[in-house]
Amino acid sequence: MFIESPRYTERFGSIRLNHVQKVIALDSGLKSELPPHGAMGVIKINEETIKHFEDRMAIVIPVKDEKLKLIEGVVSGVPHDCLVIVVSNSQREKVDRFRMEGDALNQLCRFTVREALIAHQKDPAIGEAMGEAGYDDLLGTDGLVRDGKSEAMLIGLLMAKAAGKEYVGFIDADNYFPGAVLEYVRNYTAGFSLAQSPYSMVRILWQYKPKISGGLFFKKWGRVSEVTNKYLNDLISTRTGFETEVVKTGNAGEHAMSMKLAEILPYASGYAVEPQELVSIFEDFGGILPTKNPKVMDQGIDIFQIETRNPHLHEEKGDEHVQEMLLAAMSTIYHSPLCGAELKRVILAELVKQGILKDGEEPPHIHIATPPKKVNINKFINTIQRDFDKYHVLR
Amino acid sequence: MFIESPRYTERFGSIRLNHVQKVIALDSGLKSELPPHGAMGVIKINEETIKHFEDRMAIVIPVKDEKLKLIEGVVSGVPHDCLVIVVSNSQREKVDRFRMEGDALNQLCRFTVREALIAHQKDPAIGEAMGEAGYDDLLGTDGLVRDGKSEAMLIGLLMAKAAGKEYVGFIDADNYFPGAVLEYVRNYTAGFSLAQSPYSMVRILWQYKPKISGGLFFKKWGRVSEVTNKYLNDLISTRTGFETEVVKTGNAGEHAMSMKLAEILPYASGYAVEPQELVSIFEDFGGILPTKNPKVMDQGIDIFQIETRNPHLHEEKGDEHVQEMLLAAMSTIYHSPLCGAELKRVILAELVKQGILKDGEEPPHIHIATPPKKVNINKFINTIQRDFDKYHVLR
Repeated sequence: MFIESPRYTERFGSIRLNHVQKVIALDSGLKSELPPHGAMGVIKINEETIKHFEDRMAIVIPVKDEKLKLIEGVVSGVPHDCLVIVVSNSQREKVDRFRMEGDALNQLCRFTVREALIAHQKDPAIGEAMGEAGYDDLLGTDGLVRDGKSEAMLIGLLMAKAAGKEYVGFIDADNYFPGAVLEYVRNYTAGFSLAQSPYSMVRILWQYKPKISGGLFFKKWGRVSEVTNKYLNDLISTRTGFETEVVKTGNAGEHAMSMKLAEILPYASGYAVEPQELVSIFEDFGGILPTKNPKVMDQGIDIFQIETRNPHLHEEKGDEHVQEMLLAAMSTIYHSPLCGAELKRVILAELVKQGILKDGEEPPHIHIATPPKKVNINKFINTIQRDFDKYHVLR
Repeated sequence: MFIESPRYTERFGSIRLNHVQKVIALDSGLKSELPPHGAMGVIKINEETIKHFEDRMAIVIPVKDEKLKLIEGVVSGVPHDCLVIVVSNSQREKVDRFRMEGDALNQLCRFTVREALIAHQKDPAIGEAMGEAGYDDLLGTDGLVRDGKSEAMLIGLLMAKAAGKEYVGFIDADNYFPGAVLEYVRNYTAGFSLAQSPYSMVRILWQYKPKISGGLFFKKWGRVSEVTNKYLNDLISTRTGFETEVVKTGNAGEHAMSMKLAEILPYASGYAVEPQELVSIFEDFGGILPTKNPKVMDQGIDIFQIETRNPHLHEEKGDEHVQEMLLAAMSTIYHSPLCGAELKRVILAELVKQGILKDGEEPPHIHIATPPKKVNINKFINTIQRDFDKYHVLR
């Protein structure tokens, strides 16, 4: 593939936050002549490089009652050498959708002689293993992992760790285009191949997100993303004194991390999880607050934002969650120790203006789970590894 | 990639007409274990095999006033090693859209150090070269090549021949998903890699063609395709005595041929071009009528029909052309010497029922251009090769 080299890299403490890089072409063939770090700001990512990272990567697909055809399509687009990990919170009563998902995944994996893992979010064994690891705050009163995509992501991340993977990427299950999924993963590998630090993250910016209500309109920005990105940028610029627009992927559901970075990040629940990753990185490595990870500080954090060639066409979930998403994202910024009084005031005004908060109200605190590294993660991993067969699709 | 092996191959004379093969997964990685002609009817197409055929293939993109962003997207999805040939019939007055297309293509090709050709359908030099080759019937009274996608395809095909390519594939310019374009071309290579004969054709069946009027509905069959396929199948079965449903891609705009096959086929004008290719193959190699190509008859013709993993999302052209398309497709079948009296009667009844013809009317004869091999094609090729620089994007 061909991708723009980063036009500019903002440095915030030891964070290297790269401006958006567009994908120029999906394939770069065998014959192309461009040097790897090439002419006119375009970089060629070789097929061998892509495969190198795919082989070390798990792709976690959180699922919750999505149509089977969509899930099948998404999995069929994930490059073969990646380990697919489906974490499902689909219904098991009446119609056992989880079983259907497992059957579909099994068939696809048999056809292509491929390994995959599947687990149910409410699996009592996983709840128990989480408890043993000290992740009590992830569990409900029933001892099972709580609902939520963020919780599914964390289960998937830990399973990827248990499987010995060095990178973990997330892909939503509601994508209509297998070819777009293929591109996301290849974009992840492109970012990782450009990273200088073992602590790296790649976030996907959709080129367009077509709206399909009465015709097709290629929207560039979602409503929530626009606001989230603005205030994430403000969070940086109020500290550096220089305005910036570098953050364009605050809400990126499609993103990937090196396992080393994934292990040291805390994970917010619900819609706050993606912006919170950035806020936590800004807090810990922005050089303003004392770091909890001085060794990591030395190596720095690389963040890449890659704009896809494919548009993003996914199932419409309706408008009801827009306010909830926005409030979650704003809460992560508002409650950050980096957020000064003036920025807090502006955020409150924004939320009141949007009719999400009333005068005098504050965004609620978001629940944030401890970074995997801080809990007794080996206990969880040992349990998963002991029962690994149970989670294998081709058992 | 992984693809089904053909479940069944219908033999009609020396034609091997393969039932639809589904793409199972877009990528097969480096590590997959499946033997090439493998277990459970699934075939792995290696990356090297794909690249082998891409390197020998030209992709012709007929263009007529499509949005620039769409054309750019389509080209960015064509694998790098293929030669892109854009044949444009876009407007040149007021806004010179052809020039804009050339500029956009030039920029993309510069970024990716890639060669491409672009020609205007109304280029007087091309009209003249066509005339010299003996292709007078392609020309209007003004001495220029007539309007029509079929005519653009033929120009592209001849330019591919002039460029020394062994395979030529067609991709429509109105596709929203670069990732789907990438898949089409890879599907072409998959088909060619399975061919036994140097005379081979690959036709694409879209998994779904989403309708976007008021929500998204994943339609499997277009209205025209369903009818076209039915009567193409009848054309075979009235001759073999066995009913068949093998033809599923009668109207496939996305299709590719080995140059050897492309050279000996006649090309119908307008919407008839794709079904006519099949009708002509049935006539010449079905073993019912005397063949004009006895040497080819010995080697046989391989036809593959490949169902994509990606849905097909393209610009909506409205309903006005549906009747025109159907009539064109039916004409190719109706006027074939293979079409018996009873099938003619049924086709007429169908067209009357659909309100396309009145009682007593017959489908009009479609204009069919001579196969390239039968005209003095070297004259055309010499002219194109002499002026090759003129058509190069990076001149």
